[in-house]
Amino acid sequence: MISGRCAACKYLRRRCPSDCIFSPYFSPSDPRRFACVHRIYGASNVGKMLQQLPPHLRAQAADTLCFEAQCRMQDPVYGCVGLISQLHEEIHMAESQLAKIQAEITFLNCTAPEAQGLQIIEANSNLNSLLPEQITTVGLYPQ
Amino acid sequence: MISGRCAACKYLRRRCPSDCIFSPYFSPSDPRRFACVHRIYGASNVGKMLQQLPPHLRAQAADTLCFEAQCRMQDPVYGCVGLISQLHEEIHMAESQLAKIQAEITFLNCTAPEAQGLQIIEANSNLNSLLPEQITTVGLYPQ
Repeated sequence: MISGRCAACKYLRRRCPSDCIFSPYFSPSDPRRFACVHRIYGASNVGKMLQQLPPHLRAQAADTLCFEAQCRMQDPVYGCVGLISQLHEEIHMAESQLAKIQAEITFLNCTAPEAQGLQIIEANSNLNSLLPEQITTVGLYPQ
Repeated sequence: MISGRCAACKYLRRRCPSDCIFSPYFSPSDPRRFACVHRIYGASNVGKMLQQLPPHLRAQAADTLCFEAQCRMQDPVYGCVGLISQLHEEIHMAESQLAKIQAEITFLNCTAPEAQGLQIIEANSNLNSLLPEQITTVGLYPQ
């Protein structure tokens, strides 16, 4: 059984049971993956979190736990919240620039000849559909 | 000393030492905050992570750990990676719409009279500055 142990059981130096909760998600070929989640969450917490989910959702949960753990190891202060913050800033910057372009298009629309005005109205309505909803889903991020 | 215990020491039913690692970041007035990080990371791991940081960075680390723990409790499969994915999709959608508007402005620029063309060029250059760099910092998110 030794050679078939998963990364978690190898790391924890224990026998890998046939119903091991870690085995499907922590291949022995990638020992760093388990070491990461173990260091941040602890093996027991990871096992509990996986156990509480239906089997078909566990692989995705293991992946996101690994991602968050890697982020936390790379950035022990902000973890992956640093990435959320960065995306938040980019969206804010895009929002400002879009508003500026929207103002310019509105100005052009006021001064443009009739035929061209129609096309600019179309561009402007695309900007309007972009601004209000899609740019403001960052309320979860604590300021 | 009992009445001055921090949320962590109250939760763990122990005396709160004067140099408690949790005390500055887990006020007894918000017991849920500690309960969250304890459930996801375990008190011992949170203590270790804070201890490894210089004191002036610990408050921010405690806040981001709490944020990630809350996200994981709300969404046990994706945690705050779900939020990153959502922002990623929004940026991708914005990128597509901006490209469409850029194409429309380029078209208008080709057909516009000279004086107005100058203003459209300006709007177009704003779009160019937005597209290539600011929209693609999502490489950290695993597909």
